Amino acid sequence: MSNTQLINVISKIDRVSKDAHAQMSAPQLREGLEALYGPLPVDPRASFRTVDSSGFKGLHCSAPPGLAGKAILFLHGGGFVMGEPATFRTLIAEIAVRTKANVYALDYRRAPEQPYPAAFDDTVAAWCWLLQQGYAPESIALVGDSAGGGLCASLMLDLKRRCLALPSAAFLISPWLDLSMSGPSVLTKASVDPVVSPEGLAFFAQNYLRGQSDTTPFASPLFGDLAGLPPLLIHVGGNETLLDDSVRFAGKAGAAQGRVRLDIWPRMIHEWHIWHSVLDEADAALEEGAMFLRAHLGIDVPASADVSATA
Amino acid sequence: MSNTQLINVISKIDRVSKDAHAQMSAPQLREGLEALYGPLPVDPRASFRTVDSSGFKGLHCSAPPGLAGKAILFLHGGGFVMGEPATFRTLIAEIAVRTKANVYALDYRRAPEQPYPAAFDDTVAAWCWLLQQGYAPESIALVGDSAGGGLCASLMLDLKRRCLALPSAAFLISPWLDLSMSGPSVLTKASVDPVVSPEGLAFFAQNYLRGQSDTTPFASPLFGDLAGLPPLLIHVGGNETLLDDSVRFAGKAGAAQGRVRLDIWPRMIHEWHIWHSVLDEADAALEEGAMFLRAHLGIDVPASADVSATA
Repeated sequence: MSNTQLINVISKIDRVSKDAHAQMSAPQLREGLEALYGPLPVDPRASFRTVDSSGFKGLHCSAPPGLAGKAILFLHGGGFVMGEPATFRTLIAEIAVRTKANVYALDYRRAPEQPYPAAFDDTVAAWCWLLQQGYAPESIALVGDSAGGGLCASLMLDLKRRCLALPSAAFLISPWLDLSMSGPSVLTKASVDPVVSPEGLAFFAQNYLRGQSDTTPFASPLFGDLAGLPPLLIHVGGNETLLDDSVRFAGKAGAAQGRVRLDIWPRMIHEWHIWHSVLDEADAALEEGAMFLRAHLGIDVPASADVSATA
Repeated sequence: MSNTQLINVISKIDRVSKDAHAQMSAPQLREGLEALYGPLPVDPRASFRTVDSSGFKGLHCSAPPGLAGKAILFLHGGGFVMGEPATFRTLIAEIAVRTKANVYALDYRRAPEQPYPAAFDDTVAAWCWLLQQGYAPESIALVGDSAGGGLCASLMLDLKRRCLALPSAAFLISPWLDLSMSGPSVLTKASVDPVVSPEGLAFFAQNYLRGQSDTTPFASPLFGDLAGLPPLLIHVGGNETLLDDSVRFAGKAGAAQGRVRLDIWPRMIHEWHIWHSVLDEADAALEEGAMFLRAHLGIDVPASADVSATA
């Protein structure tokens, strides 16, 4: 990495998020995220189509050679308030291009209009819909960033309580796993995190929960019973208020006999992966994530992707 | 893995460690560890020679094609009381064969005869000796298991405080990083950990520290300033009393902008790597460790070692 790359990214974020946070209204925050992520380049090899069926609304994305029978359910971030699949097209395309799987990015209902459990319910419905499309659970992996990472974990807890088959693996990018904000890093990293502030987290949690418990495992999966989860890869940056969400979740899932790989990336910021076109670590992180997904989906690793481990 | 593999390993451990723990005297504990690890098969491609110089006493191990200029300092485990390099020949040979680097296994002074800081001082001296042999710091990596993992971390903290160059990377296997035993897993995992008991930890800490502080960072590196460490790979099993040593160290090093990869392996036990000849996960874990070491030592990955990531 050149340090310049990171500084450039942060200055872009600062310009947008300062305006948004000054107001802290859902429409303005949404506009801000769209302005930030929307213009990022999308790999032209990825093709998108809209899906609008009763169980799943969102985007399907694939890249040649698309692999029938392999699916990724993608849950986007945005604090349950901001963003829609289209906002994350740059990231969704990378996942499709690097894995060759069919990526389904869910357009779940958002707060404050639709508070908890709307987004969670849509996620559960999306899982059922994927099974109805003929995907076997072991041929599906979950990917989610931020609030979407939390939805991935919540979905797995829900499948467990219903004794249903779980996905093959989950790749969580800067996941938000504790809406009660009890991780020390929420405060200790507040001054260095350019994306997620304690005030922002409180705003999003309040709008999503609307007075419901902030420790229910289907909103704050950190507080769930984490036994029996499939292999997890968790990416988090060293400059994140959400760092301790990842560390604590990894420790708890590992103690419950999960296969957990926690990668902490120095100086990286919230869901830095989205900046893959301008930040070397974002590209490297996506490649490691894709390698993990391919391994667990049983997708042969192309020779060109012979990346050695660099922890 | 077949579950049988793990059960067989644990039954071997149980036979030996029950005898040893009944007595809890240093000689009997040493005999027990030697009986357990000593007979394990050693890769015949590895050749050993004894080094007995003023800065370093121990074993040198290499395997063809040995790479001049690349070194690994290996610190064995055993609670600062048990074991010597020869006890760990099976593990040392694997590291040499899989990395092609020169592995130097230090025969540090042991407690209770030589309490803290004897082992730590010997470790610092070994580092200096390696530099005197012409190895550049960036061409040296550290590997340590259990108490040896703690010595690796303590060494790095000592290099930092002296503003000296650090090694290129460290691979910590089930490291013991907190002699104050403040990790919850010391108790929560006591009933499932067949190797390391709370009583054992207390015995070893007492014999090593002899009344000295159990939170000094050069005995309990968890309590040190973890900023500025090189890339770390930490392996720990889901059935270890020392699980939380790894989780907390990873979190703290990551928060201090370290590049940290924490891998938690379900059902695995303390330093399971040593059972590579009879346990598939031990073989896989060693291969992942070797891949990490090669990447950071700049050793080309042989085509045969094209192992995809399986977190």
